[in-house]
Amino acid sequence: MKQIILLRHGESRWNLENRFTGWTDVDLTDRGREEARKAGRAMLQAGLQPRWMFTSVLRRAIHTLQIAACEMQLDWVPVIKDWHLNERFYGALQGLDKSATAERYGAEQVHLWRRSFDAQPPLITPDDPRFPGHDPRYASLTADELPLTESLRDTIARVRSCWEEKIVPRLHDSDCVLIAAHGNSLRALAMLLLHLTASEVTGLEIPTGKPWVFTADDRLDVQSAAYL
Amino acid sequence: MKQIILLRHGESRWNLENRFTGWTDVDLTDRGREEARKAGRAMLQAGLQPRWMFTSVLRRAIHTLQIAACEMQLDWVPVIKDWHLNERFYGALQGLDKSATAERYGAEQVHLWRRSFDAQPPLITPDDPRFPGHDPRYASLTADELPLTESLRDTIARVRSCWEEKIVPRLHDSDCVLIAAHGNSLRALAMLLLHLTASEVTGLEIPTGKPWVFTADDRLDVQSAAYL
Repeated sequence: MKQIILLRHGESRWNLENRFTGWTDVDLTDRGREEARKAGRAMLQAGLQPRWMFTSVLRRAIHTLQIAACEMQLDWVPVIKDWHLNERFYGALQGLDKSATAERYGAEQVHLWRRSFDAQPPLITPDDPRFPGHDPRYASLTADELPLTESLRDTIARVRSCWEEKIVPRLHDSDCVLIAAHGNSLRALAMLLLHLTASEVTGLEIPTGKPWVFTADDRLDVQSAAYL
Repeated sequence: MKQIILLRHGESRWNLENRFTGWTDVDLTDRGREEARKAGRAMLQAGLQPRWMFTSVLRRAIHTLQIAACEMQLDWVPVIKDWHLNERFYGALQGLDKSATAERYGAEQVHLWRRSFDAQPPLITPDDPRFPGHDPRYASLTADELPLTESLRDTIARVRSCWEEKIVPRLHDSDCVLIAAHGNSLRALAMLLLHLTASEVTGLEIPTGKPWVFTADDRLDVQSAAYL
């Protein structure tokens, strides 16, 4: 049997400030770090032994993984950091206060941007300081890969390529992997694992700091899924 | 020009206790963590931008790297953890108090084990709990690779394979790499970079927590080496 563990990072500074975060690289709060420690202890107590770990290139997920791995005494396990596992790119909403955005665009429009499968928030332009093309961590991305905005569908498409090209091959060589990432990139993985529909995935709320453990057969057909 | 930065981890719990550590996976002390933060700040202020990072599979080096990378806001940079960069394997001396060892074997013998190029400490046997074959992080090593003891010469030979197979290829694709490791594995790298003799390398003392920055041409011939 194979085990796939999904772990959503805990509270970040912008969760506290109620702002759209997306690819903005904000850090965990002390509470977020404590959530990561608890998750690590829960995985240790459950006897989970991931042999590969994956995360995004955003520090709130990277630190969650480092803190949990430290609690598990598995600091030595190889980690792949991949931008494909980043949070959804929120376009021109990134950095904006969620309440102010609702006042400006209307609550219904904001709800649609946040909760529909296909709606894209307003685009940024490449001269916007928020454009990932200005950040050295995205220097290897092609023009097509650098987002100006994303729908949940767009996010799922890029997460899928990481799943197929990086995670699945390692699952063939090892029995357990841990993926620390974000609300929407983990929704994407849950959709792939559980064959969810668009409306099921938009309604899916993954709690922070709770390891979600999937067991699967060698063909990666899921047999069970449970939070620790 | 290429830049190669060597960083020796700071104080660990067993430095405090004056014990032979080797491959024992002891953690940094608070002071060791502070050394790592200072090293990160010094590299940040010097404008260093490593694009690949390397470390051993021992947490005192891994945590040094994580802490320094966090200070540099370079958490997203890929990290390769390789057992070839581990500290020298001290055989049957691992875990022993250094003063008690000197009383038992004589100060001269202990000095020889610690400071000669070829002397190997007493071997352990594979049924010893300290044998790395019992540890899952070394599960992929062949019988020949699992050490029972090591001279400095032995350590250098395995570090060289990491240098040639993993570090040099990444230096061809990027201009700056950072390697966080241990006294003896960093001596090995310094020997390779500076073409030191056996007596020069045994006399080399690398300070903890001080980034040692080498600049080299595209053929990796060193042009300068200076501590930050």
